[in-house]
Amino acid sequence: MRVSLKDVAERAGVSIKTVSNVVNNYPHITPAMRARVQEAIDELGYRPNLTARHLRKGRTGIIALAVPELGNPYFAELAGAVIDAAAEHEFTVLLDHTRGDRQQELLVSQGFRARVIDGLILSPLELEPEDLQGRADDVPLVLLGEREYGLPFDHIAIDNVAAARTAVRHLLDRGRTRIAYLGTRTDSANRPAHLRLDGWRAELAAAGLPVDEELIVPVGGWDRDDGARAMANLLDAGLRPDAVFAFNDLIAIGAMRVLHERGLRVPWDIAVVGFDDIAESRFGAVSLTTIAPDKQAIARLAVASLLRSLSGRQDPGGRELTAEFRLVERESTLGRR
Amino acid sequence: MRVSLKDVAERAGVSIKTVSNVVNNYPHITPAMRARVQEAIDELGYRPNLTARHLRKGRTGIIALAVPELGNPYFAELAGAVIDAAAEHEFTVLLDHTRGDRQQELLVSQGFRARVIDGLILSPLELEPEDLQGRADDVPLVLLGEREYGLPFDHIAIDNVAAARTAVRHLLDRGRTRIAYLGTRTDSANRPAHLRLDGWRAELAAAGLPVDEELIVPVGGWDRDDGARAMANLLDAGLRPDAVFAFNDLIAIGAMRVLHERGLRVPWDIAVVGFDDIAESRFGAVSLTTIAPDKQAIARLAVASLLRSLSGRQDPGGRELTAEFRLVERESTLGRR
Repeated sequence: MRVSLKDVAERAGVSIKTVSNVVNNYPHITPAMRARVQEAIDELGYRPNLTARHLRKGRTGIIALAVPELGNPYFAELAGAVIDAAAEHEFTVLLDHTRGDRQQELLVSQGFRARVIDGLILSPLELEPEDLQGRADDVPLVLLGEREYGLPFDHIAIDNVAAARTAVRHLLDRGRTRIAYLGTRTDSANRPAHLRLDGWRAELAAAGLPVDEELIVPVGGWDRDDGARAMANLLDAGLRPDAVFAFNDLIAIGAMRVLHERGLRVPWDIAVVGFDDIAESRFGAVSLTTIAPDKQAIARLAVASLLRSLSGRQDPGGRELTAEFRLVERESTLGRR
Repeated sequence: MRVSLKDVAERAGVSIKTVSNVVNNYPHITPAMRARVQEAIDELGYRPNLTARHLRKGRTGIIALAVPELGNPYFAELAGAVIDAAAEHEFTVLLDHTRGDRQQELLVSQGFRARVIDGLILSPLELEPEDLQGRADDVPLVLLGEREYGLPFDHIAIDNVAAARTAVRHLLDRGRTRIAYLGTRTDSANRPAHLRLDGWRAELAAAGLPVDEELIVPVGGWDRDDGARAMANLLDAGLRPDAVFAFNDLIAIGAMRVLHERGLRVPWDIAVVGFDDIAESRFGAVSLTTIAPDKQAIARLAVASLLRSLSGRQDPGGRELTAEFRLVERESTLGRR
């Protein structure tokens, strides 16, 4: 006979919920409690059958997550957070990366594994609102990233303009006045990149500083070497800002490498602020000040939003759910010596 | 009527294979060809139906991949490579991370989503061979990482002893003689960590150098801050090696941060070699010399091995399939000035 969660709970003398928590490997369980439940699991040979539980509800227990690039630590960390948030509700995550290609994003948004998945979380880079208009699929969809789609899908975002203004304000507070923005791409629909540029402009204007268009530096992509090339281009053009606000941490890290090679000292000669708070930004010879979006909150909101759709309640969708961000101050913006 | 791949090929005047390559977003397709096929796709409104194609073969078209930690760039980059390798065969990847917890690895290895997935690629950290002996599941399993399980599952590995010897040999060639090894854990079954230590010992012995057990430094985990703590512990104990070989790049990066804080210059005072060749190791003020396992080859071998099992041919399994590695020389081991 199949061993149930209830059998394990009785043997261990704990609640079914506690056994469930241990089986799902939740945090905040004491080692003693974990050991006690584990002992009962081992004795009885209990093996959870998540699939059957979902099938009874007409679900597969699988949600899909599509991000542009797993090689980008921000998306890898976000994917880890989504996997953890989904696991709390006993869902498993089917992961794909689109390489930020509009056609791939379109394919994913339309019927990607429609018979297998209960819902889809999509983090688009290049997808346009019109791409989603003809969406025939009835699989619930949640979008990540700030964007006005005007469509009945929830999307989870942080306030990119406010975050960028916070970053620029921090540099102004440190006495910097010639602040470059690294990370525009004329050929990209990447909305956060445009919004962060808007925030940069707005905060400079609020400080009564002139906006020097030469300090807006295009990038060829969103990775470290794109940041390195952009910084080199800026310096080679004879421009010498006293601070850099980068679209993301990877671009900032590439830029700092070039500054180091050119003998410019961060933060003394040029201060640098990134965006994303990837783990890497805490290390390196100079740790990086950055805007930290609350990745756990983004993941939890996205999963909760999908579950709301799955609950079968009438739901118009189309909400914008906002996660918080904070500025993390590190060595790259220390005060001048 | 449903538009087929053949319809698209005829409209574009190309082969079905070419259309398939474009749809699957393969590299090495000229932009002109891509545009030509895309035009036909758009005109006809073609939408691939991978699920149906797999279902006809009695498959779901989904393989699972379980890695210890997506927050570790090595595993994120490896997962990206597996997703790409699987996509070449029109398989999608269901991803989970186990946090290197033996119980989680056990759960995954036993019937994880057995009704949904066609096969499982598992990268275990703590799983013991006996955990796999009672495996009732008939879902094909491939293991990643060097380990003698003596069980009928293929596993994909690099030669960790040879790789570690290559790293230590490189340091010896640079005139270093007091080479610390950062990355033992007495409480862990992590086999590669033990094998790399074996390689360190073997190469020192081959060079006729004494093995100083004090230079074998335990770590509390495999992340950057574990490396930082281990390096601090070594220095605080009054030990001053002239080189460090770290179990992985993250530990090396944490160690370099502490060396920088203590005013020790890499490579002049202490040379550092890592392992994994994560993208991050190319950047930072001092780029990191490292052992680069061929992640694409590991991914391709793992997917090919699963597909062999799926083909239905009698297959005893239990092969060890070896991927190559190479030493990537960077600034952290430049010759002394």
